Amino acid sequence: MTEPWKAKFEDERARLNDVVLESGHLGIKRFFALDEQAYRSGALPAKVKELLGLVASLVMRCDACVSYHLIRCREEGVTREEFDEAANVALVVGGSIVIPHLRSAAERFEDLAAS
Amino acid sequence: MTEPWKAKFEDERARLNDVVLESGHLGIKRFFALDEQAYRSGALPAKVKELLGLVASLVMRCDACVSYHLIRCREEGVTREEFDEAANVALVVGGSIVIPHLRSAAERFEDLAAS
Amino acid sequence: MTEPWKAKFEDERARLNDVVLESGHLGIKRFFALDEQAYRSGALPAKVKELLGLVASLVMRCDACVSYHLIRCREEGVTREEFDEAANVALVVGGSIVIPHLRSAAERFEDLAAS
Amino acid sequence: MTEPWKAKFEDERARLNDVVLESGHLGIKRFFALDEQAYRSGALPAKVKELLGLVASLVMRCDACVSYHLIRCREEGVTREEFDEAANVALVVGGSIVIPHLRSAAERFEDLAAS
Amino acid sequence: MTEPWKAKFEDERARLNDVVLESGHLGIKRFFALDEQAYRSGALPAKVKELLGLVASLVMRCDACVSYHLIRCREEGVTREEFDEAANVALVVGGSIVIPHLRSAAERFEDLAAS
Amino acid sequence: MTEPWKAKFEDERARLNDVVLESGHLGIKRFFALDEQAYRSGALPAKVKELLGLVASLVMRCDACVSYHLIRCREEGVTREEFDEAANVALVVGGSIVIPHLRSAAERFEDLAAS
Repeated sequence: MTEPWKAKFEDERARLNDVVLESGHLGIKRFFALDEQAYRSGALPAKVKELLGLVASLVMRCDACVSYHLIRCREEGVTREEFDEAANVALVVGGSIVIPHLRSAAERFEDLAAS
Repeated sequence: MTEPWKAKFEDERARLNDVVLESGHLGIKRFFALDEQAYRSGALPAKVKELLGLVASLVMRCDACVSYHLIRCREEGVTREEFDEAANVALVVGGSIVIPHLRSAAERFEDLAAS
Repeated sequence: MTEPWKAKFEDERARLNDVVLESGHLGIKRFFALDEQAYRSGALPAKVKELLGLVASLVMRCDACVSYHLIRCREEGVTREEFDEAANVALVVGGSIVIPHLRSAAERFEDLAAS
Repeated sequence: MTEPWKAKFEDERARLNDVVLESGHLGIKRFFALDEQAYRSGALPAKVKELLGLVASLVMRCDACVSYHLIRCREEGVTREEFDEAANVALVVGGSIVIPHLRSAAERFEDLAAS
Repeated sequence: MTEPWKAKFEDERARLNDVVLESGHLGIKRFFALDEQAYRSGALPAKVKELLGLVASLVMRCDACVSYHLIRCREEGVTREEFDEAANVALVVGGSIVIPHLRSAAERFEDLAAS
Repeated sequence: MTEPWKAKFEDERARLNDVVLESGHLGIKRFFALDEQAYRSGALPAKVKELLGLVASLVMRCDACVSYHLIRCREEGVTREEFDEAANVALVVGGSIVIPHLRSAAERFEDLAAS
């Protein structure tokens, strides 16, 4: 059984986003808005976009980004089989240096699926 | 009007794959097989997997990889609107350094769509 | 003597930006606007911001990005001595894989300085 | 209120630099010297060079490097407004994968500014 | 004196590999097999291959990968002098952003050498 | 049959190194010296160091760096079998985005071996 990382992750993320945005820099604020809008359902459904975000985060090896997209993937109903196939694309594209990130992603996916 | 890059790209790719594989290294041969299998239809359809490959290639900034997945995306029926939404995810995740690759990708996508 | 790369670079850049933007994706258009605004004079002068863009482009090894920021650096009056000091930071941070990009950057800087 | 990370960071850094250098490899020792010299005031003031180091570290996503340059930026008098503008360049160039590093950088900057 | 990280690292690695592989995705399983086979003695001895893996992991800045190859390097008899020369290649190729990873690698190497 | 790329590559490299170094920046000059010294025979033979440089260049996807180390590898007597095993490590560590660089590397290796 793993720690309830999801609530902790989301609280810390919200708290630090405030620290970033509280100084009121317009460009950073707009970038955050574009980031959120990029994953909204359109010609491609939100589920596919979250899988795109997950694979991009895995090959770029950003654990915090992976955690965020895992939470969203689960909300969009991504199954373990779909996660594995997306993760396999990331593994083949990005190589064995993706494996440490794949390890924690698999654990977090299972944790989210069990809750 | 752009040059007929697709045939040239595929010929060069096939010719150089032969140079890589002709020495018979088993590990490299197996990696090439895993690479091809990763994009086959399964729990996720081939079209989604090609979009995953496209976005991964864009954020990793590999023009040859982008060209390959663009050809496959068109074969799977990806529209310009879907391409734009996937490219936008890559742009937001990977930043402005993705733009030069996005430029040639957009041109190549239009070229494939027109043929 | 090098070819007059600047005009060619700017024409190609403008032509391909049109190919990217002509389909009217709002997210991509807004990203392009944020990209341009990030380098405008503010608390930090435009010259410093262009040097930031140059160093970021060198360590990320994006030749097209380097070319763009070199043109802007020259417009902002960056000298060879200042270029060398910024390039040295990029070289130390990013390592010898930056060198091929530093080579063409130095040639392009001299070309711009001579014109 | 965050933990007094600065002293801890600097102690750990000094302790581990000793572990790296105690075996007396000349190349590594010289690299460390070049690294330090790259940020000394010259044609560009130290403040600008530290901002270059900060942006390079953010786009390369190296938290320890970011922490080091944040400490030096504050010593050179960088304001929150200047930090935001430099961070925005890093965010636009490097994309949303920079955000987790921007989050901790903003927190650390505020921590240094408050002390 | 550092904590006995080796046992902890290997246990965690084995536990999470199980989480990755337990769903039975064939592509991921085969990738893991290729990864292991790549470092077996052949035309190049295992020791040289582990040094290749170490340097690749350092320039790609993957601490977990570095730890794995450090353990294997020690098993193959790599000395501190050989470690330093390989690390120096990684430092020159990858630049100062490699230094935080070099710091923990040197500490872990010494820890393994002392046990 | 491929063009005699080696002479052209070496001439261009020497010409542009002069453009980089002619302004006399001491830090850059010293970095170039460290770069050369890193591959000299020591506790590890030059051949192994060139293989380290080759694999680091492949996973970092720097074609010019790969070409340089291929020339040096051949001078140190690296065989196709040894090249394949080193390239396989790079492929597994770095993933399929290494393949375009592996393709041209294999062609260049064969070209050097035939001359």
